[in-house]
Amino acid sequence: MLIRCRRVLTVLAVLSLVSLTGQAFGQQDNTDPLPSWKEGPAKQAIREFVRVTTDRASPKYVSPEQRIATFDQDGTLWVEHPMYTQVMYCLHRVGVLAKKKLEFWKREPFKTVLSGDRRAIAKLPPKDLEEIAAATLSGITVEEFNADVRQWLTTAKHPRWKRPYTELTYLPMREVLSYFRANGFKTYIVTGGGQDFVRVYAEQLYGIPPEQVVGSVGGTKFGYAKDGRPILIKEPKLLLNDNNAGKPESIHMMIGRRPYAAFGNSPGDRQMLEYTGAGDGARLMMLVFHDDVKHEYAYGPAQGLPNTKVGTFPQALYDEAVQRGWSVISMKNDWKRVFSFEK
Amino acid sequence: MLIRCRRVLTVLAVLSLVSLTGQAFGQQDNTDPLPSWKEGPAKQAIREFVRVTTDRASPKYVSPEQRIATFDQDGTLWVEHPMYTQVMYCLHRVGVLAKKKLEFWKREPFKTVLSGDRRAIAKLPPKDLEEIAAATLSGITVEEFNADVRQWLTTAKHPRWKRPYTELTYLPMREVLSYFRANGFKTYIVTGGGQDFVRVYAEQLYGIPPEQVVGSVGGTKFGYAKDGRPILIKEPKLLLNDNNAGKPESIHMMIGRRPYAAFGNSPGDRQMLEYTGAGDGARLMMLVFHDDVKHEYAYGPAQGLPNTKVGTFPQALYDEAVQRGWSVISMKNDWKRVFSFEK
Repeated sequence: MLIRCRRVLTVLAVLSLVSLTGQAFGQQDNTDPLPSWKEGPAKQAIREFVRVTTDRASPKYVSPEQRIATFDQDGTLWVEHPMYTQVMYCLHRVGVLAKKKLEFWKREPFKTVLSGDRRAIAKLPPKDLEEIAAATLSGITVEEFNADVRQWLTTAKHPRWKRPYTELTYLPMREVLSYFRANGFKTYIVTGGGQDFVRVYAEQLYGIPPEQVVGSVGGTKFGYAKDGRPILIKEPKLLLNDNNAGKPESIHMMIGRRPYAAFGNSPGDRQMLEYTGAGDGARLMMLVFHDDVKHEYAYGPAQGLPNTKVGTFPQALYDEAVQRGWSVISMKNDWKRVFSFEK
Repeated sequence: MLIRCRRVLTVLAVLSLVSLTGQAFGQQDNTDPLPSWKEGPAKQAIREFVRVTTDRASPKYVSPEQRIATFDQDGTLWVEHPMYTQVMYCLHRVGVLAKKKLEFWKREPFKTVLSGDRRAIAKLPPKDLEEIAAATLSGITVEEFNADVRQWLTTAKHPRWKRPYTELTYLPMREVLSYFRANGFKTYIVTGGGQDFVRVYAEQLYGIPPEQVVGSVGGTKFGYAKDGRPILIKEPKLLLNDNNAGKPESIHMMIGRRPYAAFGNSPGDRQMLEYTGAGDGARLMMLVFHDDVKHEYAYGPAQGLPNTKVGTFPQALYDEAVQRGWSVISMKNDWKRVFSFEK
């Protein structure tokens, strides 16, 4: 009996040791951490990268504090067509502000937005969109802005799926985020979108806290409210444009380490992937390619797909990916399903 | 025997539960987490703050992901007299660069620096120091800069203690950092000093990783080396001045949450403490007051101490602290010892 008791204790001790070791080194059990991915080169690349960077016996082992992975958002983690979600929010804000700012009804580009003419709105050039963003994302405290975006997200719906934008995240990519984190990686969003905007929902949607969201940054100004309370007011001023070369520059400023993995889907992510790939050891660079018109959208113009102004994927980027050994994720061929609400 | 075996198992299970609970809630055992602090109001304020924000039964409980604490560096975590360490590095760099840039020997303010006349150097106005910083902290890749600072830190010594600057951190403040982290707080440096400079040593000295160092930011430019390799070059351009109002503005940009605790030592930290104190629930605002001429330095001009240009503590700041209920840490009365090399 004593022997049996000792055996039980030994088994318990070994089990708890195994459990602790598993936790410490982020080892996975045998269940597939990427169930929405079809077996193929993309899934294989992700699993192999995680294996070689987290296995202490691997020559490409990366110590936990160095494990940084960066993800673009629009078109990489969630839907960006027919228009970026933040632009939809800004257009909505024009309507709200126009109740007080009556001059909006006479002044372009606000007049066009208020007309509700979707075709005319879709044709607004970047300069006009920037003016709209500056006017609608400023003049309020950071807390007022957060509350307003949060409220809008509960009511706004995507025109195609008639669902909140927050349901339009890509399930396979959320699996990648979880898989990376389970293996000791710190996951960052590095987006061309507004940092304050994405921070409102990133924790709830992706498990990514505000301090791990890097984006385009508008100025804020510290000051005092009438009652003397210190406040931060959003200013109509772009401090950092987190696109193209701005991505590695912001990564250096906000993180201070070179990522080991970077995910994107358009030329705005190119320099981030180049910078990531220029590091030594194992590095993973991946681009999401929208080629599934049935479940989401199909746009290029790479590989003969239709061209687009929103999140374009030109042939030159496709060719660079092939040449540099980056993985192109085909939504059609690499994913079993796109959204968690699909069967 | 079976009964005894069951009892052993029960005891084991209870013990492991206690251990897990202790870990999960960051509970301390009975050893003093702040052994270099004398019993008194400052130590009491820190312990009470940690207790009410981490005890789930407390009405001022703060969920772990919200636990942010920010610390100024120069004069708060390490010695800043007779001159900021980074300025000493810049002066050294002038000498190195002058071997190639012969015009430095004829041009002010470089000529004064190269003269070695400590009195004249100490009198250089901020504009000249900025010009020296811009010239010495730019034109190289971020990796070259890191390597150079790292190398300098191994050889440079403080004129008074004849020890590396890296040994001149305040032991009581390092205990606060550890104590906060053991209780689930994320500790950040928020310094007026150069972000890239402080990041070189913050992990080794304070256990604070690069992504948790916020500081004044010089521009970096993404580009390609002659061999095509993507690189980031430091530019002679100040993007963010992380002093005064710049501190809460940078905290919003880099962290995106209001801190629950903030530590500083001079007017450059005032707005950070005001912004922290404007939040609801328990907030801890503390200022290190240098009044120990024997073990470190004594400077004000608050409370009749001598005035200084480096890390001044004016009476107005002292009065604001008293009025707003911030704690002033007296190095002489609140600390048992300043440095870990003291007996």
